[in-house]
Amino acid sequence: MKKVGVIMGSDSDLPIVKKATDVLTSYGVPYEAHVFSAHRTPEEARAFAMNARDNGFGVIIAAAGMAAHLAGAIAANTILPVIGIPCKSKALEGMDALLSTVMMPPGIPVATVGIDAGKNAGILAAQIIALTDDELANRIAKLRQADAEAVLAKDEGIAIRLQDK
Amino acid sequence: MKKVGVIMGSDSDLPIVKKATDVLTSYGVPYEAHVFSAHRTPEEARAFAMNARDNGFGVIIAAAGMAAHLAGAIAANTILPVIGIPCKSKALEGMDALLSTVMMPPGIPVATVGIDAGKNAGILAAQIIALTDDELANRIAKLRQADAEAVLAKDEGIAIRLQDK
Amino acid sequence: MKKVGVIMGSDSDLPIVKKATDVLTSYGVPYEAHVFSAHRTPEEARAFAMNARDNGFGVIIAAAGMAAHLAGAIAANTILPVIGIPCKSKALEGMDALLSTVMMPPGIPVATVGIDAGKNAGILAAQIIALTDDELANRIAKLRQADAEAVLAKDEGIAIRLQDK
Amino acid sequence: MKKVGVIMGSDSDLPIVKKATDVLTSYGVPYEAHVFSAHRTPEEARAFAMNARDNGFGVIIAAAGMAAHLAGAIAANTILPVIGIPCKSKALEGMDALLSTVMMPPGIPVATVGIDAGKNAGILAAQIIALTDDELANRIAKLRQADAEAVLAKDEGIAIRLQDK
Amino acid sequence: MKKVGVIMGSDSDLPIVKKATDVLTSYGVPYEAHVFSAHRTPEEARAFAMNARDNGFGVIIAAAGMAAHLAGAIAANTILPVIGIPCKSKALEGMDALLSTVMMPPGIPVATVGIDAGKNAGILAAQIIALTDDELANRIAKLRQADAEAVLAKDEGIAIRLQDK
Amino acid sequence: MKKVGVIMGSDSDLPIVKKATDVLTSYGVPYEAHVFSAHRTPEEARAFAMNARDNGFGVIIAAAGMAAHLAGAIAANTILPVIGIPCKSKALEGMDALLSTVMMPPGIPVATVGIDAGKNAGILAAQIIALTDDELANRIAKLRQADAEAVLAKDEGIAIRLQDK
Amino acid sequence: MKKVGVIMGSDSDLPIVKKATDVLTSYGVPYEAHVFSAHRTPEEARAFAMNARDNGFGVIIAAAGMAAHLAGAIAANTILPVIGIPCKSKALEGMDALLSTVMMPPGIPVATVGIDAGKNAGILAAQIIALTDDELANRIAKLRQADAEAVLAKDEGIAIRLQDK
Amino acid sequence: MKKVGVIMGSDSDLPIVKKATDVLTSYGVPYEAHVFSAHRTPEEARAFAMNARDNGFGVIIAAAGMAAHLAGAIAANTILPVIGIPCKSKALEGMDALLSTVMMPPGIPVATVGIDAGKNAGILAAQIIALTDDELANRIAKLRQADAEAVLAKDEGIAIRLQDK
Repeated sequence: MKKVGVIMGSDSDLPIVKKATDVLTSYGVPYEAHVFSAHRTPEEARAFAMNARDNGFGVIIAAAGMAAHLAGAIAANTILPVIGIPCKSKALEGMDALLSTVMMPPGIPVATVGIDAGKNAGILAAQIIALTDDELANRIAKLRQADAEAVLAKDEGIAIRLQDK
Repeated sequence: MKKVGVIMGSDSDLPIVKKATDVLTSYGVPYEAHVFSAHRTPEEARAFAMNARDNGFGVIIAAAGMAAHLAGAIAANTILPVIGIPCKSKALEGMDALLSTVMMPPGIPVATVGIDAGKNAGILAAQIIALTDDELANRIAKLRQADAEAVLAKDEGIAIRLQDK
Repeated sequence: MKKVGVIMGSDSDLPIVKKATDVLTSYGVPYEAHVFSAHRTPEEARAFAMNARDNGFGVIIAAAGMAAHLAGAIAANTILPVIGIPCKSKALEGMDALLSTVMMPPGIPVATVGIDAGKNAGILAAQIIALTDDELANRIAKLRQADAEAVLAKDEGIAIRLQDK
Repeated sequence: MKKVGVIMGSDSDLPIVKKATDVLTSYGVPYEAHVFSAHRTPEEARAFAMNARDNGFGVIIAAAGMAAHLAGAIAANTILPVIGIPCKSKALEGMDALLSTVMMPPGIPVATVGIDAGKNAGILAAQIIALTDDELANRIAKLRQADAEAVLAKDEGIAIRLQDK
Repeated sequence: MKKVGVIMGSDSDLPIVKKATDVLTSYGVPYEAHVFSAHRTPEEARAFAMNARDNGFGVIIAAAGMAAHLAGAIAANTILPVIGIPCKSKALEGMDALLSTVMMPPGIPVATVGIDAGKNAGILAAQIIALTDDELANRIAKLRQADAEAVLAKDEGIAIRLQDK
Repeated sequence: MKKVGVIMGSDSDLPIVKKATDVLTSYGVPYEAHVFSAHRTPEEARAFAMNARDNGFGVIIAAAGMAAHLAGAIAANTILPVIGIPCKSKALEGMDALLSTVMMPPGIPVATVGIDAGKNAGILAAQIIALTDDELANRIAKLRQADAEAVLAKDEGIAIRLQDK
Repeated sequence: MKKVGVIMGSDSDLPIVKKATDVLTSYGVPYEAHVFSAHRTPEEARAFAMNARDNGFGVIIAAAGMAAHLAGAIAANTILPVIGIPCKSKALEGMDALLSTVMMPPGIPVATVGIDAGKNAGILAAQIIALTDDELANRIAKLRQADAEAVLAKDEGIAIRLQDK
Repeated sequence: MKKVGVIMGSDSDLPIVKKATDVLTSYGVPYEAHVFSAHRTPEEARAFAMNARDNGFGVIIAAAGMAAHLAGAIAANTILPVIGIPCKSKALEGMDALLSTVMMPPGIPVATVGIDAGKNAGILAAQIIALTDDELANRIAKLRQADAEAVLAKDEGIAIRLQDK
């Protein structure tokens, strides 16, 4: 199975990234995590991206905040699909990271998920890897089903919770 | 090769979607286009999504404006990766469509590209399909190279253009 | 009297929804609450909406956050009036949920109340049901009057409170 | 059948309001239109609202732009459901009217539709009136069906239009 | 000396309003405070505004949050200058109240100060009253001077504070 | 009667400012207009403000766009009430000018009107001057009445216009 | 005199960049212009930045739109001061480019000017170069003075223009 | 070596400014700090700016919140490069200060850094001073290198931290 590269721009993004790697672990999808900064270690970020396809990666997840250039900088150096997680920081409620990640110029797309949406980034990476792995596809479908059943279970108890509250 | 499903919420989104299908055509990636509305023909949208994997699709692109639910509604009914194109409409500069597409709840990701970014949606879809098709990967890499050369060509002439203007 | 359907996209929306059901209880308007997700249990949400009119419902309230598709997904499957409550979540101050709920495409309206405005959703639902129930209309008018008197009572004491503070 | 009151804050809102009254006409729902300003003719607006229920109205639609207080001012003087249409004006893309209409304080809800969404206001008004008129409900359901069929028809021709364009 | 009317839409706005009345007290400007709601006690708000000029008021300050209609509703019923204080509430960082207060339609201005800017509302009211009271003008000028001196005093100590911190 | 100072940051703001001076002319309020830039001719702006009270001015209107500092710079140098008109320019829909004008720090208020709201600035200035001029107050009240009658006249014809359109 | 590097992300930014180079030409500051894309020709952008100091550059201006990473990518590879011009594109009024340019993470500053503010970028570059060139400083001061005189000239004629209009 | 002027609009901005002066201290760049308000002590701010060049300053940093005019007011009175730090205050997440600082009219640029970005302001000032001081340039380059190594060190430990967390 192809690996997922998981890059964060700063280790302050770790709690968000952890949600992505937890998903990958639960699905049995191999990954390799790195701290690379588009601005402080651009060379390492670039080298990772350029060699990612040859090194067995199938997708790259990149998480960054503020003027979040990391996902775009990775995407500029690989033709692998790159998933961007915009991270909320101290000002502007994450809007800066969202626009910096999603509004890429024509030619270099970044598959952007919601602000701080580490879990969805992990799931999306798995969905892409699953295109060539039916067993993984089945695991994703089962987890989806379990999610649905959890909602249904909550539906059953809701009348009582509304009265008790 | 797996097909790309290309769904638009309204035929007014056609000019944006056309940019995506032109990319797919130029890459030789097969696609199938539909007009489904998350709100006016929810049943057809849902049926398409549920059967997409079995029907040979590998990725689905969904374009919609305003409270753009289409990509999310598709994603809720398939485990294929779904790419969302938020389309700008008459008010709010596309911000409504962007937030409605990208801020998906945990469990159901949408790979969102920029506002009206049909071309990037097409490229991203091709990048995903290319995970299992080395020839397609080569075509994408070549087009990327051609893009870079076009920028370099413009760089050469820029001094003259700045003076002439 | 027709019932009010009260749907929430996640049980984390319970505190907001509770404000709506408290109003309904105080007015003596019957309601039935559910946890349905537009994305995780779309089939149940759809089935509820399609049968709501036949099952004695007159209005449906739907509360959801982020890319809040729930109210729109319900509205797409019924001709009953649907009231949407956009719920604030961790980023963007509720703007994502507001735009995802209110900016519906032509043909499928959602009667949107303010961000986290559970109480107003309950009152609006009661106002709609009251169109055919004069006694309920009287109860609403009385509560409105009591609200006004509470403001007037506060007006009386305000001079002292400003000085004491 | 109860009538719909249709109020606009200025006759410059006429093109938006016209979309609402066209829907009402096509459904056979009686309406009465007025130009009242929350700020320039507050007394007339208030008098209309206070007597609306006794005068046979079932719902009131109010359209206004900028600091759009009209729907709220109407709602403050009646217990009928009030539908607010925020109208886009020269600056801020309609965001001012949207927030002024939808963010009502607890106690006085306004059922807000999208920016400039005259058609949806008309449909929502009809849906509310239809709670006590099965024939109207059927007409609404049929129009909804016709809308769906129009989308399906567009779906059929889309492949050709994408290639021809 | 003419009085300042100080109106708040809810007693939850008291801390903001208190900043305005403290300024008025320190300047020796008489005021009269009220809790009136544009939506819950519209009649009282209107009566106050209509009679304000005859009752010896020279300016009215109105503070409200969310879809903040209070200042506009007061301004619609008097030709006295009306100062609006937009109050921040739980969502949207005060942007809703700001736009609802400042974006008034042509004909009915509201003199808007910053979000939660109770102190500035008090100063502005005093500046207006001072147009016909030279002694008050002198007091305002002296306080302004004292403010400037406080800044200068802070300037002197800043080098030490920067090193100590 | 005291004069109104009317300052614009650039002569590109002339069409907006003209709406203010037209109002003043129609009310018979004397004014004096200037082009001063807070950034390009700060000294002239400051000198005008410092001497305005002694030179017979009662209110100052200041119109500027972008990082609109003009009204604040004027207000920092006078205790006269200063009215700010935020002007929309090529980007950001006037939001930059609005926030730069209204969000003044404690101590130096600017009475801000809506984006491009020249007419309301003129009316507000006249309302302030009218505090000591009953005849002007009467003229303002009459114009207000005429505005109301114009709305009422439009109300009469609206039914026909809706059908004809 | 040190040169100014002037980089644009796409030749569609030429009209904005031209405003900067015109300023530089009028001041007699040498510059060298390039089209480099942070995403399509990242290697060229990087090489230019890394060698800029040795190649006689003193400042670099970078103009880009959308998720405008160019200025940040340049700044990451040089310790020269980098001036960023955020360019408005088809959606979002330039807010995307502004936030992508200005909200840089700690360690790598970008000196950001306003949206589409090519002229100010040119002036700022000249001001920096002028730190070691008194003659240039004098030219800048003179142009500043000429600007002020142009404003003063407009001030003289404004009374007549307001009446004539 | 030329000095850096460090101005703050209020001593509440001290924690942000401190990040800038810490950088300057660590680089050995001399600075002089002041509290000047564009609105409360405009004369002192102006005098400082007008004499800054003659007094041995090379760059000025100005930090302010809300309608942040300080940097612009300084820039209007000097041809030295002025760096603006927009400071976040209680409402609007710093957007008010950002737009008030960056959107300067043509002719008077402010080199704006991110919201609360004191550290980047200090680095940018040092980068500008370093244009004529190779030793300082070397110190900046070394610190940049150290930053990069810190990121690389974090990269090494990240796999373990992700599992342990």
